[in-house]
Parts: sequence; C-alpha cells; structure tokens
Amino acid sequence: MSKENNLQKRFESRLLSPVGKGLGDLTSQPLVTDAGLLGWNLLREDISLPVAVLSESRLQHNLQWMKSFISTYGLKLAPHGKTTMSPALFHRQLEEGAWGITLATAPQVQAAYEFGVRRVIMANQLVGKANMAIVSRLLQNPDFEFYVIVDSATNVTQLGEFFAAAGQRLNLLLELGVAGGRTGVRDVATRDAVLVAVAQYPKSLALCGVEVYEGVLKEEAAIRDFLRLAVRELLTLEASGHLQGKRAILTGAGSAWFDLVAEEWAGLDKAWSGDQMARPLDIVLRPGCYLTHDVGIYKAAETRIHTNNPVARAMQTSLLPALQLWAYVLSIPEPGLAILGLGKRDAAFDAGLPIPAFHFRPGRDTAPAVAPAEWKLTAMMDQHAFMQIATDDDLAVGDMLVLDISHPCLTFDKWRQLLVVNDKFAVVDAVETFF
Amino acid sequence: MSKENNLQKRFESRLLSPVGKGLGDLTSQPLVTDAGLLGWNLLREDISLPVAVLSESRLQHNLQWMKSFISTYGLKLAPHGKTTMSPALFHRQLEEGAWGITLATAPQVQAAYEFGVRRVIMANQLVGKANMAIVSRLLQNPDFEFYVIVDSATNVTQLGEFFAAAGQRLNLLLELGVAGGRTGVRDVATRDAVLVAVAQYPKSLALCGVEVYEGVLKEEAAIRDFLRLAVRELLTLEASGHLQGKRAILTGAGSAWFDLVAEEWAGLDKAWSGDQMARPLDIVLRPGCYLTHDVGIYKAAETRIHTNNPVARAMQTSLLPALQLWAYVLSIPEPGLAILGLGKRDAAFDAGLPIPAFHFRPGRDTAPAVAPAEWKLTAMMDQHAFMQIATDDDLAVGDMLVLDISHPCLTFDKWRQLLVVNDKFAVVDAVETFF
Repeated sequence: MSKENNLQKRFESRLLSPVGKGLGDLTSQPLVTDAGLLGWNLLREDISLPVAVLSESRLQHNLQWMKSFISTYGLKLAPHGKTTMSPALFHRQLEEGAWGITLATAPQVQAAYEFGVRRVIMANQLVGKANMAIVSRLLQNPDFEFYVIVDSATNVTQLGEFFAAAGQRLNLLLELGVAGGRTGVRDVATRDAVLVAVAQYPKSLALCGVEVYEGVLKEEAAIRDFLRLAVRELLTLEASGHLQGKRAILTGAGSAWFDLVAEEWAGLDKAWSGDQMARPLDIVLRPGCYLTHDVGIYKAAETRIHTNNPVARAMQTSLLPALQLWAYVLSIPEPGLAILGLGKRDAAFDAGLPIPAFHFRPGRDTAPAVAPAEWKLTAMMDQHAFMQIATDDDLAVGDMLVLDISHPCLTFDKWRQLLVVNDKFAVVDAVETFF
Repeated sequence: MSKENNLQKRFESRLLSPVGKGLGDLTSQPLVTDAGLLGWNLLREDISLPVAVLSESRLQHNLQWMKSFISTYGLKLAPHGKTTMSPALFHRQLEEGAWGITLATAPQVQAAYEFGVRRVIMANQLVGKANMAIVSRLLQNPDFEFYVIVDSATNVTQLGEFFAAAGQRLNLLLELGVAGGRTGVRDVATRDAVLVAVAQYPKSLALCGVEVYEGVLKEEAAIRDFLRLAVRELLTLEASGHLQGKRAILTGAGSAWFDLVAEEWAGLDKAWSGDQMARPLDIVLRPGCYLTHDVGIYKAAETRIHTNNPVARAMQTSLLPALQLWAYVLSIPEPGLAILGLGKRDAAFDAGLPIPAFHFRPGRDTAPAVAPAEWKLTAMMDQHAFMQIATDDDLAVGDMLVLDISHPCLTFDKWRQLLVVNDKFAVVDAVETFF
C-alpha cells in the first residue's frame, strides 16, 4: 500500500509542460494525471495541432487481446518498453498481468525503475562504465529483478570486473544470434568462451537462461529452426551445469513473429522432466508494438498471425491501430496539393508515410468522415507533409486530417506527452514519454 | 537588468533529468547550467553512451563565421530555431547579434518566448484556434515582436476573425512560393485575394513584408529569379499602399542557399529612394543549420558557397561540424561486422547514416584516433547501428566510436539535453531542447 502510494506520488509530481506541443493552451501547469479534467476536445479545436493521440478504447482492446493470447498459451509477457517509453503505459501492461518490462538501454531501465517497474529484461548488451553504474545503483534495491543479455567473452569480463568491484551479482541471459543478423552468439566456440568468462566471476555473474530476437530473420522455417536451437541450447546449459538462479528464463519475440515463438515454446515449462531442467522455467515473450499497433508494418505482420495462428484466429478480433496523428491543412497552394502542418518532427517516416484516415472541418462537421482514398502523403519535410488530392476535393485551409501511422516506435519518440482520447475525441488522459 | 535576472532565473530553474539519456550517473538533480561543474569527461567513461555532444570551440567558430558573413553584407540574421529548439543556443545566437529567431509552429514560438526570445518570425502558416490562442497570449506582452506568413485568403480571414475578436493586431508577411514547391502564393490572383482579405481587417492585421523559402528550388538561376521576384513583389506592395508598419521586412534563406540571398538582396535597404520604399527595410536571413553544420547535406552546400561566394571565400575558414554522437561497440558478432549502441532513436538517418570519425579505447588510448576509412554504417535499427569493418581491424567490444552526422535537425530532436564539451572532451555545459 505504501509502495503504491509512493508510485502514485511519483506520477503526480509530473506536470504538463507549458511549452510542450500537442496540448491545449495552458496558462497554468496542471498535473499530467489531471489532463482528463481540463475539458479538452479535439473536435472543438482545444488542442494545438499537430498532436499524437492514443485511443483509450483501442488501447484497452489491444491490452486485452494480448493478455488473452499470452494466457491461452500459458506464457509470460515482458513487452518491449522501448516502443512507448511511457511508464504510465508500462503500468497499464503490468496491471493486465505482464511479468515485466523489456528495455534496450541503461537510461531506459532507469526511467522505468524511477516510475516503479521492478522486473526488467534489458534485451541488449550492457556496455560502458556509466551504463553499468546506472544498473549497479538500481540493483542496490533488492526488490529490483534485472536480466541483461551477453554475447561475447569481452563484455562478460567487463561486466564481471565491474560488478565484482561493486560487490553485486548480475543476472545474465546468453543471447543467440544468426549469421547476417544483429547481436548474438553465432557458434559454439564463442558460446563456450562466454561460458568460460562467466565462470570466472561466480559471485558476480549468474547465467539464468537464453535470449533470442527472431525478428532479424524473415522466413517462418528459419525462425522455427532458430527457436528450437534456443531450446536445445537452454537444455545444454542446464545439463552442463552453467545455469544459476532459482528459475530459468527462455525469452524471445518481437512484435512481428510472436505467434511462432508461442507455438514453439508453449508448454515446455511443463513438458520437461526434472532430469532435463532442474528448476522452474519462465518463457517470456517481448512484443512491444501490439499496444498501439499500426496500419503498416505491424498490420501486415498481424494479418499473417491472424491467418496462421489458431489462438489468434479463435479470438476473432484483431489488434487495432490506437495511435493517430492530427494535423491542419496549412495551405492548398496549387491544384492537387495540400500542405499539412505535420512533419518528420511528428511522425515516423521510415516504414511508410502516415496515411490520411479521416477528415474534419471545424465549425461545419460533427464528426470526422473517412478521408477519400486518393488523399495520399507523397513527402514529408521537418515540419510539413505534402498530400496529394484531387483538384475538386472538398478540402480547405484549416481543415483537420487524422492520420494513421506505420512504426509506432519512431512516432512515440517525437512526443514528450501524448493525449489519450475517448471515442468522442474528448481528452481523458495524457501520458508522458522518457526517451 | 531585471529582465536579464529573470531570464537567468528561468534557465536556472531547469534541472538535469535523472532519467535522461546521454548524461553521467546522477544521484542528485543538478542544474542544467551547472553541468560543467560536475567534472564529467567523455574519455573517462563518465557519460552514458550513446550521447550527442556539441563542441564548444566549433560552436563558437560557427557563430563568428555567420556573424562575419552577415555583417559584411550588412544584413540581419534570424536563424531558424527549429533546428536546435534549444533556447540556450538561441541566446548564444542573439548575443552574437542575431536580430531575432525564426520558428515553425506556435508551440515552438511559445518555447522560445518562455526563455526570453522577444522577436520571432514564424516562417509557417498559423492555423487553428489553439495555435492562434498561444500566439495571442504571447502578444499580450507589448515587447514581443512577432511576424507570421500567409499565403491564402482563407487563412488570412481566419486570422483576421480571431485577432479582431482578441482586440490584437497581428503582423503578416506575404509568402511567395513556386510551382511544385511547398507553401506560398504562386500567382497574382491568389496574391490579390490575400491582399483583399488582409484589407478586411485593418485594425487586426498588418502586412509588413515578403517572405520566401528558396530551399524548395534546386538550381541557382531559378533561385536568383525567385529572389528578384520577391524584391519586385515587395516594391509593388509598397507602391500599392498595402504595406503597414514602421519598417518593412524582406526575408528568405535556409541553410543551403543563404549566399545567393545575401548576394541578391544586400544593399537594397540603402539603394532605394523614398519614392520606391517609404520606410526602412530589414533584410532578414534565416539559416539555422550553420550553428552545428554537418558532414552531409550542409557540408555539400557549404562547399559550393565557399567556392562561389566572395565573402565566404575571403573568410578562408569554413563552417565546422560541431555536433557528434558517441557510441559503444556492443558486439562484434561475426567477422567484418560491429554492432554499435546507437540507432534511429539517437541520430538522423534521412540524409545519410552517421559516419564513423574517431575511435577510442578506454583505458588504453589517451585521445581518439581517426577511424579507418573502411568503417562504415550500413544500417540502423531503433537502438542499434551496423558498422562494416575489416576482419583484422583493431576493434573490440567496449570501444567508443565518435560519429559525424548529416541533418542536424533530426538529430537534435532525439535528445532532450546535449552536452557541450571542450577540445579535451571535458563537459563544460549542457543545453536543453524543447521539441
């Protein structure tokens, strides 16, 4: 109870920035958690556009979708927090049963810790004294459970020296990789060198399991092979006495192939005999983008999942895009061209440009209408988007466009706060990000 | 004196974020302005990498370079603040004689105002009630001088209605554009419609001059024609009695073609007779990227400027890249490939990937050494960069890479604070950004 109160206080120490973008006109500094009390509505032009907006009902839908998927398979979820870097959203996920939060860097871990997250997988190498110092400081709290991945003897030795000097013990996961991929051990010799290095620091390093990121592969068969390799590798580590800790961890799954990971790994924790695995196993999936989904790369992935995966199919509903951008038409300077007040400063552009979804004319319309299919963004500059229109389309300077996005990660990191709206576009909440 | 004290207080109310990236390990919350007192040095691994770093000596060099260029031509400078969105850097520019700051959105204007900037050109259309409300609130301060561009009668009418209701007067600049370009009036009919609309609100709108952004054009001859058109247009507005205000403004110049703008417009303020222009003229250039420069798109532009422009040539020195990124080698998972802890979350990637410039091994090297020419980034993910190396290169996990960047704008917006370092890589200051 006291912990919850402290956390509540931590969030209630945060104020809406008087100089932030995508907010209403602020003459005072209300609490972020009071954003829903300000009476703002997008359709009434209370908000400075461009703005990034989360749909409360769709967030809730996606939370329940993934909770159902994970629990049906009997797995654990540690959603990748790098997507949103929003502690308020981390807590929405934890409240729906997530086992922990995955993060990518020491400062990200620190931001999550600061807002009460107490179980973290850092799905990345921990390199450099200042980064190790951040983690070391957090580990002073015995309630903080932390795992970091390793793929080289060099890094293991650096970690061993640092945490031995700090008198602390660091939990490691062996990262497996694939040729042509990103990080991760490719061969037996490197794996064995990592294990030898870990063994040099028995009091300071504890190998707790195996980690993969299958998203560097592009084909199902190769991904399934890789996931099975991870299982064999985990059993080998256990058999050879390299695993430490009361429980073992097997973790994988980005946002595109989590169905295959579930199919391959579900039930392993119950299937093995005590001879094969002497300790309980946590099978942890790490998709992060499901929370907001998109209409681009992750919609494509989800279409495949919904077609192929029996659990997803049985749920009938799909993930829904919950993050949209609103922008004004600034200018219609020549026939067929509208310039929107939205740019690379506001939206991801590396996996397709934002897609006009709805159109709203303040003072005339009562609700946004579906945008004509021919409206299409052709380019973005820092603060402008170029939208192709038909010459006789009913579009005017001052109209609002609602745009769907592809790649939520790189949209979130353009916003220090995002508004949460209900289905009538009234602001019901705001969430901060910490990139 | 009291104003300066207030501004000083505003900056001294800002604290380094305990959860920010690219900082040292913070157990307290020092003032941003005290960052130089913390004893941090990059080479001693005091800083969590990745980090974005500004070179104090190069910033100073670039400030002096542009000051000299602008003053030789007898022009005025309102650097585009959208590049850095850093009020501390705005003040460095104002202290070196900048006439004002250019910005792109109402929230950007508000951020600059909050930190004491009192003369602003908003080189973008002001659209939407909440955006107008922000500007209206700032205009309550009679010391705040503000100009915004218009290119449609629709927008002018919206502004006229809003500011008439507010009992305020808004200064406008007519934006000229080019066919196939971005915003801006393309033809006489649209221009005349804008003028008619402005004339409907004589107490609420004041047309003060002409604005262009020549950067949408790609060839010198077309740019010179466009700049001359802007001059003719200004004289026409004066002759037809459409200009208001005690002074007139003629403004253009992004970061790529500011030399042509200087060549075309310098001296106009002294050349015209009272019959041609009844009021003093401010010729305002708006390049923003000169402050940090880069080794990509703006280096290419500057090479042309240094070759062609007599003033730049006479200065002998060039602008210098002042913004770099530092990152660790996280993994060398296979021969020829190093994975760096640096990604799309940390650096611009839309105008070329970052370029490895220096290499430093903590504990062995005393200073960074020039990186081998074959080290090259081939891809970036959200938190990782892929660097191609030779199989036998002397590179290890834990080594630091110093990377040059292309497109400073989209690098700045990945960082809420940037460290300023001296030539020995000691941190001497920090600056915040407000994107």
